[in-house]
Amino acid sequence: MSLAPKIRLFIAESLAQDAGIMLDRDQTHYLANVMRVKLGSIIALFNGRDGEWLAEITAVSKKCVELRVTEHRREQDAPVDLWLVFAPIKKARLDFMAQKATELGVSKLQPVVTQYTNLDRVKVERIAANAREAAEQCERLEVPDVGEIMSLKEILDSWPDDRRIMFCDEDLSGKSAIEALTDVDDKISPAPWAILIGPEGGFDEDERALIKAMPQTTVVSLGPLILRADTAAIAAVSLWQSALGKW
Amino acid sequence: MSLAPKIRLFIAESLAQDAGIMLDRDQTHYLANVMRVKLGSIIALFNGRDGEWLAEITAVSKKCVELRVTEHRREQDAPVDLWLVFAPIKKARLDFMAQKATELGVSKLQPVVTQYTNLDRVKVERIAANAREAAEQCERLEVPDVGEIMSLKEILDSWPDDRRIMFCDEDLSGKSAIEALTDVDDKISPAPWAILIGPEGGFDEDERALIKAMPQTTVVSLGPLILRADTAAIAAVSLWQSALGKW
Repeated sequence: MSLAPKIRLFIAESLAQDAGIMLDRDQTHYLANVMRVKLGSIIALFNGRDGEWLAEITAVSKKCVELRVTEHRREQDAPVDLWLVFAPIKKARLDFMAQKATELGVSKLQPVVTQYTNLDRVKVERIAANAREAAEQCERLEVPDVGEIMSLKEILDSWPDDRRIMFCDEDLSGKSAIEALTDVDDKISPAPWAILIGPEGGFDEDERALIKAMPQTTVVSLGPLILRADTAAIAAVSLWQSALGKW
Repeated sequence: MSLAPKIRLFIAESLAQDAGIMLDRDQTHYLANVMRVKLGSIIALFNGRDGEWLAEITAVSKKCVELRVTEHRREQDAPVDLWLVFAPIKKARLDFMAQKATELGVSKLQPVVTQYTNLDRVKVERIAANAREAAEQCERLEVPDVGEIMSLKEILDSWPDDRRIMFCDEDLSGKSAIEALTDVDDKISPAPWAILIGPEGGFDEDERALIKAMPQTTVVSLGPLILRADTAAIAAVSLWQSALGKW
């Protein structure tokens, strides 16, 4: 594999040998005015479908950057199918959670409103921008989807039969995460999963009962200390990846 | 156990029934001017030695807050003995790493200079302040120590015989962390451990050889994606806690 170019962008267009690409306004600004790329510079492109490609700058001005796709660098691989279902938290921590979850390989970020959720709105575009930027930096070949915010009841009512839930319960009744996850016989044909992280006040009793009653649910414990929601999310994704994912 | 008071402070003084406590200037400012506590308010105190105690405000002015220790709330427990040895990163991410590592139960934060480390100085007081604040918020009974920065060679030359090293190697030669850690027979009498996280450019070849040659070293992989140093640290601590620690 050739050396990674310094700049790596996610784009919507299809990628194929010799394809011509014109960047959108934000990416044009970034390349032309922030990174000051020159004619002939090589960058990497990916779109979540066609793997990663190298592309050469064939035209550059303050308002327009054009590229020609020159070389296939990596094949698209099958990503893990892991949702992170989380109650929204404040801005800086939410940015952070979106970035870290992307680095750690989550396939979908799904905000959910619970009884003790402090915020019931969330800027989907902002979460998506953080996810895209993190994917560009961490060599991922796809950007996680971001769902519109839903209530916990809505989301559980329409929950797919085959998608397992890793429920990080604060009451310490669960087994250790590694024990619980390695007990689940998913090694051969891994089911889709979701990690469910409550708000900082935790879930209320009815919500906990509802979640635990789902046949898809595996209850795990993240230890006796009180973790902030973003910490719990990162810890849970790491444990899932090491037990059942691609680590 | 009685309900947790909203305010929880780490102090240096000894704690015992009916002891009188006078807060230092920063904590006086925080209680008197930021939180505006009243005479008779109850807060929680801990010092890393005597467990957690409730204390009542017996005097409060802008320049002086005095307390009387009223009730033993929690016994001191034996903390895990887990160092996090890390190359310093930029301010916001370093703050964040110190906070998260504290929440996740690390006992010592040890900065280390490596070949590809971008920063070779680090504000120990700033790391310590972040750790203290996180410990106050997450119900921990002790605050992690913070070591003065050392070179990788210095630290490995004086490495304790009985302290194992979880080395998060980027070249993917390691087993998955869970496999590697559960293979280590530490369940009965857990050895002290350290997690070693490289800078964002990774370790150089000589450094990797040096680390791998230590008999204390267990090499683990954190997957194929490129993790930022703070993400890798949080992931590694979570995995260690779940495999060998108190989760």
